Amino acid sequence: MKISTLKKLFVGRPIATAQARHERLSKTNALAVFASDALSSVAYATEEILIILVLAGSVALAYAIPIGAAICILIALVASSYRQTIRAYPQGGGAYVVTKDNLGTLPSLVAGGALLVDYVLTVAVSVAAGIAALTSAFPVLYDYRVLLGVVCIAIIATANLRGIRESGALFALPTYLFIASFLGMLGYGYLRWLFGWEVAPAPARTGAATHAVTTFFLLRAFSQGCTALTGVEAVSDGVPAFKPPEARNARIVLAWLGLILITLFMGITFLAHHYHLTPVAEETVVSQLARQIFGGGLIYYEVQAVTMLILILAANTSFADFPRLSYFLARDGFIPRQFGTRGDRLVFSNGILILGGTAALLIVLFGGRTHALIPLYALGVFISFTLSQSSMVRRWLVRREEGWWWRWWLNAVGAATTGIVMVVIGVTKFTDGAWIVMLLIPLLIVAFLVVHRHYADVARQLSLEDYAGPPPIEHTVLVLVGDLHKGVAAALRYAQALSPSVKAVYVELDPDRTRKLEEKWGRWGLGIPLVVLTSPYRSLLAPFLDYVNHLLALGEHHMVTIVIPEFVPARWWQHLLHNQTALLIKGALLFRKGVVVVDVPFHLKD
Amino acid sequence: MKISTLKKLFVGRPIATAQARHERLSKTNALAVFASDALSSVAYATEEILIILVLAGSVALAYAIPIGAAICILIALVASSYRQTIRAYPQGGGAYVVTKDNLGTLPSLVAGGALLVDYVLTVAVSVAAGIAALTSAFPVLYDYRVLLGVVCIAIIATANLRGIRESGALFALPTYLFIASFLGMLGYGYLRWLFGWEVAPAPARTGAATHAVTTFFLLRAFSQGCTALTGVEAVSDGVPAFKPPEARNARIVLAWLGLILITLFMGITFLAHHYHLTPVAEETVVSQLARQIFGGGLIYYEVQAVTMLILILAANTSFADFPRLSYFLARDGFIPRQFGTRGDRLVFSNGILILGGTAALLIVLFGGRTHALIPLYALGVFISFTLSQSSMVRRWLVRREEGWWWRWWLNAVGAATTGIVMVVIGVTKFTDGAWIVMLLIPLLIVAFLVVHRHYADVARQLSLEDYAGPPPIEHTVLVLVGDLHKGVAAALRYAQALSPSVKAVYVELDPDRTRKLEEKWGRWGLGIPLVVLTSPYRSLLAPFLDYVNHLLALGEHHMVTIVIPEFVPARWWQHLLHNQTALLIKGALLFRKGVVVVDVPFHLKD
Repeated sequence: MKISTLKKLFVGRPIATAQARHERLSKTNALAVFASDALSSVAYATEEILIILVLAGSVALAYAIPIGAAICILIALVASSYRQTIRAYPQGGGAYVVTKDNLGTLPSLVAGGALLVDYVLTVAVSVAAGIAALTSAFPVLYDYRVLLGVVCIAIIATANLRGIRESGALFALPTYLFIASFLGMLGYGYLRWLFGWEVAPAPARTGAATHAVTTFFLLRAFSQGCTALTGVEAVSDGVPAFKPPEARNARIVLAWLGLILITLFMGITFLAHHYHLTPVAEETVVSQLARQIFGGGLIYYEVQAVTMLILILAANTSFADFPRLSYFLARDGFIPRQFGTRGDRLVFSNGILILGGTAALLIVLFGGRTHALIPLYALGVFISFTLSQSSMVRRWLVRREEGWWWRWWLNAVGAATTGIVMVVIGVTKFTDGAWIVMLLIPLLIVAFLVVHRHYADVARQLSLEDYAGPPPIEHTVLVLVGDLHKGVAAALRYAQALSPSVKAVYVELDPDRTRKLEEKWGRWGLGIPLVVLTSPYRSLLAPFLDYVNHLLALGEHHMVTIVIPEFVPARWWQHLLHNQTALLIKGALLFRKGVVVVDVPFHLKD
Repeated sequence: MKISTLKKLFVGRPIATAQARHERLSKTNALAVFASDALSSVAYATEEILIILVLAGSVALAYAIPIGAAICILIALVASSYRQTIRAYPQGGGAYVVTKDNLGTLPSLVAGGALLVDYVLTVAVSVAAGIAALTSAFPVLYDYRVLLGVVCIAIIATANLRGIRESGALFALPTYLFIASFLGMLGYGYLRWLFGWEVAPAPARTGAATHAVTTFFLLRAFSQGCTALTGVEAVSDGVPAFKPPEARNARIVLAWLGLILITLFMGITFLAHHYHLTPVAEETVVSQLARQIFGGGLIYYEVQAVTMLILILAANTSFADFPRLSYFLARDGFIPRQFGTRGDRLVFSNGILILGGTAALLIVLFGGRTHALIPLYALGVFISFTLSQSSMVRRWLVRREEGWWWRWWLNAVGAATTGIVMVVIGVTKFTDGAWIVMLLIPLLIVAFLVVHRHYADVARQLSLEDYAGPPPIEHTVLVLVGDLHKGVAAALRYAQALSPSVKAVYVELDPDRTRKLEEKWGRWGLGIPLVVLTSPYRSLLAPFLDYVNHLLALGEHHMVTIVIPEFVPARWWQHLLHNQTALLIKGALLFRKGVVVVDVPFHLKD
């Protein structure tokens, strides 16, 4: 019972189905719940742009401003586009559901595959970036970043197995603290700049420029920065969690979210440029910025702490999203059914375990470096954006509801733009790792289809339609004996309870023993006939299998139940001291048509 | 069926019991069969003495002559002593059997443990020395000696699993070739010396003396050389294999064996001293000797080849001895019963596998170096010598047959001498590795006793003596269902064949599904009552286990058979797509008293 004790310790006591509560979120709380994923990306998006630009020398860093502006326009566009989705899907419009609804199965599977990949990467990237915030403040921990990342994922997964609720109370404090801290930091930074309280440092010496500033080069930097958009879609998935009027409140929250995101992202990008910050491996750009503005005091540590916290909250949102999507996919028969059932504590445990395991694996494989994971991340997000917006385009066209034409227009611009960005990311990041995602998503789709075909096939084979009922069975019970003792006698008695036509079968290896057995049989054999099979090659199995085959050949509906008396020693090591005949027979007849193998345990005392 | 094909390829087709033939050996063939183990030790015994002596500088090498002489006296003594054993045990007098017969169980277990260790070491030492003969001739192979040793053991083990017979034909050629080659080499060497055809080389410069020549030091060298005696006892084990008069022929063969052994061992020791040979890691002393005498031509390679061959034959003898002793120990209930049954090809396969595996492990652990294994080897041999001789001493005393007093005297001297040597080896070699054997043998004895007690206990618990027969059973059959489809219908039909009182049990997770199931049940449920259990915590297992416990509590002789319908997918990976409920239930109820779990397979088509 050790495992169940362990489970109770880490996962907690079971929760009854009736205890499932539904909490409706006010706008303030909803912003806190849905903002963490989107806002947390400002912790690394600017840095990711600079990492590319610096390859063309420190002069090229100035391109961060127009690239940042372009991304802000993209954010505004995608947020507006998703506000239409909220209107159309007040019951929650995730990319998989929306695409399935409007574009059909295959596109929805593309969206599903892209989202699964996206959720795993959200965990890996957010945790890697969160640990980077920590190691920027405490450089001594830098060498332990992989271990710290894995431990962090383990803690989040455990919390989710226990079933933490996405409650406003949990999210409000860190999210608003993050927003306040960053707005404060940026505001103070701009004040210092405005009033000339300090002079920005001279540009740092960077390595020699290895890249020329070409259009392709700038598009690479832009692609990296597009990670700022990850998580913008979260609000539209969760409309039913809002207080009524749900759709209206969700639309307001999404607008606010877009505004805050643009402010923080652009503010950081501007100031980073002002201070001539360049990315280095050991310290994040946001950490450098905070150090520059506050000079490394307590407030600096507070900024690092809230950055780490919001990134962990962002990772945590995937632990709700991934199992939920898995549930939809399992319900539709595209992934194993085990993902469709809730565990003891009302959570989808299998999804949580797979998500945590895969994300931890990525952290290990990519050495816990945010920058190495980013090229894989943005592509999946933009695939689901594009499919989701395209679905809306088709929906407006088909339904032609009131005001459809301008909504159609808005979603069409959104779909076209995110589609172009998707292609740009795929091309510019291909060799950096986007190829992995481009290979993985088709593979996932093939797996979905194979699983689906199997379930459909099984359902057809098991269907009771036009079924005449199971045929009558001719039943023979055999007891395989090697000796006659109390354990065998108990098995014989049990076999008699199963059928009036029981036979005992003995495979003769030594005629002397047969004689002794036959003597005992007369007295203790319960009147059951004893069949003796000879075995010229001393094999127990071969003559017995021949005999079973012979019985099975007697009729199509013949079933043979093989009763095997088995000792159950009191201690585990004592199993080694007994011939594992039962195991051998079971192995030989496992899943054999028409054969059922039954162990009858005889319990030895210690 | 792949495994059985592989087995056929390596192990061969089964051999019928009736095909077991008995071949009686002439004296010439018997000498060939039983000599390899004893004679092969001359390939390393001299070298082992020199390895110690050289530590005290090259002058100390001269002590090899008196030490060698002492060992020859010991050989003569032990051989004479064993000739008495042959007289007393014409049915074969191995140390385990003789000790059990005369000194009782515990001493016989000491002998048994020592012999098991001895057999494993015979394989490891002989193969290591055989590979050393090979790598002396072809130094390029020296770095591969561990791999070569393991491959060599694998080949010998495979041959024995196929069941090679200890036939004179197989052994005669290499053994007599070995004797002839070595006698020829020694004879030619002495002729050259006698007629001054060459001048012995000057003593080689050896490293500085690190040890003084103390009594303890000389005893260490003597202990190492005692490995020359290993295998002398083999003839007395195998008396029944001789042509009649068995005992007489065996005694003659043992005398010859002793004589040849002394001649070869002393001849090598003398000449090695004459040529001032010193041991080096890469070339054996026997190889140096052959090179010195023959100058490295074809004859040199022939000597190396027959040395390797006889060492492999020596290893091979353990593959007959170890399984035979295991059989005796298993028959007496001291080791697991599985060692007591012959495999398909009339050999004790388990013993062969354990012996080969353990010896290969030793080769790997000790880096394939003969010298590292020697300290472990000699101790076990002398423990069994001492016990075997002591048994004879007691036997003569108890029986007082004709001429008992001088035989008693001979065995007493033998026992005392081998006993003293045993102590000398244990003390002088303790830190070199003898401690491993001194630790291992008591552990083996404890294991023997624990196993024995378990078997005795089981036999008592299973005994039919004063047994009133198994009590009558009250039997309930439950079918655990999660749905109703063709697979479940087949299982219901099967359950009806087992008992008239079948109940189907359904654990309710979702009341909607219960309603649907109940609708189908009316039409397809075969009239079997459906018990619905509620599950507030969505656990399938807990409510079901409660129900089973409730049934079991109804009466002492109540048995519950749980029938579980199980899909059998056509392909292995499809197992992953189904909830492993059957496995879960089996795991929870495994070996539960009064409960029998029965899978009824329903075969899905591909």
